[in-house]
Amino acid sequence: MTDIRPLILITNDDSIHAPGLLRLVDCMPQDADVIVVAPAEPHSGQSSAITVGAPLRIRQLDDYGTARMFTVSGTPVDCVKLALSAIVPRRPDLVLAGINHGSNSGCNVVYSGTMGAVMEGCVVGITSCGFSLLHHSMKADFSMGMPFIKEIVAELLRRPLPDGICLNVNIPARVVPEGVRVCRAARGRWTDEYERYTDPLGNPFYWLTGRFVNAEPDATDTDEYWLSRNYISAVPVAVDMTARDEVEFLAPRFDTK
Amino acid sequence: MTDIRPLILITNDDSIHAPGLLRLVDCMPQDADVIVVAPAEPHSGQSSAITVGAPLRIRQLDDYGTARMFTVSGTPVDCVKLALSAIVPRRPDLVLAGINHGSNSGCNVVYSGTMGAVMEGCVVGITSCGFSLLHHSMKADFSMGMPFIKEIVAELLRRPLPDGICLNVNIPARVVPEGVRVCRAARGRWTDEYERYTDPLGNPFYWLTGRFVNAEPDATDTDEYWLSRNYISAVPVAVDMTARDEVEFLAPRFDTK
Repeated sequence: MTDIRPLILITNDDSIHAPGLLRLVDCMPQDADVIVVAPAEPHSGQSSAITVGAPLRIRQLDDYGTARMFTVSGTPVDCVKLALSAIVPRRPDLVLAGINHGSNSGCNVVYSGTMGAVMEGCVVGITSCGFSLLHHSMKADFSMGMPFIKEIVAELLRRPLPDGICLNVNIPARVVPEGVRVCRAARGRWTDEYERYTDPLGNPFYWLTGRFVNAEPDATDTDEYWLSRNYISAVPVAVDMTARDEVEFLAPRFDTK
Repeated sequence: MTDIRPLILITNDDSIHAPGLLRLVDCMPQDADVIVVAPAEPHSGQSSAITVGAPLRIRQLDDYGTARMFTVSGTPVDCVKLALSAIVPRRPDLVLAGINHGSNSGCNVVYSGTMGAVMEGCVVGITSCGFSLLHHSMKADFSMGMPFIKEIVAELLRRPLPDGICLNVNIPARVVPEGVRVCRAARGRWTDEYERYTDPLGNPFYWLTGRFVNAEPDATDTDEYWLSRNYISAVPVAVDMTARDEVEFLAPRFDTK
């Protein structure tokens, strides 16, 4: 292993034009080869969506420092799949996504294109991690979390994650983080989700909005708890969503003789 | 509860035009109110994608039997969210999705728009279940699985699923199923994923294809195992993807002092 430089594949869901993507590249170790394969257009909220029944294009852009830069005309998961099939010269040691402009804590992991890309890396057995800043602005300041990202990436390169497990890292905004805490995702949901409008012809249309409500405000072991105390949260996520414990409980109800 | 008819919300990812959707409506009990809110266009492989930053439209169509029929101009998750916000007259007792034209067994649950809709129902605390037939054709024969679907729906109405747990039901094609087995998802991945083409201008483009490889062909407790023996598989899926056991194992590696 000493004669081969680690290869790190980086993507995101905010597109190749998002500043957070370059800040993640800035966190990579000097001795790594870095290949960025990001969506040509923004794909927030795309979860693990894949492009079915339509062609995809790859475009190579100018290098960013020593990082090679590509776009794919699809979703974050398309980026990872097509990068692994047609772009990378060898199997990456890490798949990273981010730094996302906005939170992926709590149940937001379900909708997150950032974490969709990370789960895809994990499905194919590569140590994978997503990074998100709790600030939506394209002008957000990522600098205060970057020393912690460097440490996390170094640890991921030293020792891979367990098989089938990836990491969802969220970073508080506008503060120097107090530190990092591995924790579980807070349960919660979105409420007041749609704004209703009427178009000039008198027909209604709807626009997604809403706010996230933490269903466990008193729990002290969740990502929401630690983020609210200015810590970085790191949630281990399983790509196998089977609720193992429930198999035996539900079998008597649904199994036929 | 005896004076209120159960309300069942049904969606899919193959669109309002898919025959499998109507076959699922055909499985509903006589004493239930049924509201169908399905995507106006096909959205296979859309996972839990949501429409961010663009408007959504609702359109009401002619009833199908006693079922009220609507389309939403978005993804399967958009359908569930907007149905709950703006269409249903009261909280549904069940959210069902399908019958999907094609398998959602193994790791395919990650990409499945069918299961994205189901997970959305589960996130908001409604007992939710997806049904998929292992046959892609729009002319597939759903009839042999339908008696089993009726039984599963009846049981879901008798007693809700545990909080945070939904069901992913897959149905073998072209046979009378032997029965139903609650089981776990087989691990696996897709290989040979892209076909490479050259367009008339000499530029390459890529098209998703590939085949699913079961990484556990010898395991006897997986959905792939039971489906290959002509059983219907029912996998309990957790919407909280936190790998709880890993929190304590990973904390020493990533927690700061």
